[in-house]
Amino acid sequence: MARIVVDVMPKPEILDPQGKAIVRALPHQGVTVFSGVRQGKRFELEVDGEVTDEILATAREAAETMLSNPVIEDVVNVSVIDDVEA
Amino acid sequence: MARIVVDVMPKPEILDPQGKAIVRALPHQGVTVFSGVRQGKRFELEVDGEVTDEILATAREAAETMLSNPVIEDVVNVSVIDDVEA
Repeated sequence: MARIVVDVMPKPEILDPQGKAIVRALPHQGVTVFSGVRQGKRFELEVDGEVTDEILATAREAAETMLSNPVIEDVVNVSVIDDVEA
Repeated sequence: MARIVVDVMPKPEILDPQGKAIVRALPHQGVTVFSGVRQGKRFELEVDGEVTDEILATAREAAETMLSNPVIEDVVNVSVIDDVEA
């Protein structure tokens, strides 16, 4: 089994309330080294068998049209993982 | 500016209703090549200046203790991105 990873992040100009909440909370936990935090999504798409170029193209299209909202989010990564763990 | 990426996924044995919803919806869009979908989170932590080993260790600890729920989630990746875009 192979997996395709799709990473989606809020566009830089879009407010990210979850990230903002985290960056404000960290100093209360003694963590002051991070000047900003953005929170996005990571999808793992499981493929039975080998990931062909066609399947990868399908994943890229699904990432752009179904797994992300192109108005507010960017697909920052679509790549193959070949290990079986997780 | 550098960024540290933290990827968090639901543990394999944990039900993932968002992933399940996606894998059921894809065939309605004509996408039938994916046998499973899991949805997790991707965090980008911004660091002013260089990412030292100490800062990376801080990120790993924050990932395990604050950015994920160790009961139901695994931290699957903590790594540095050095580009400036996004």
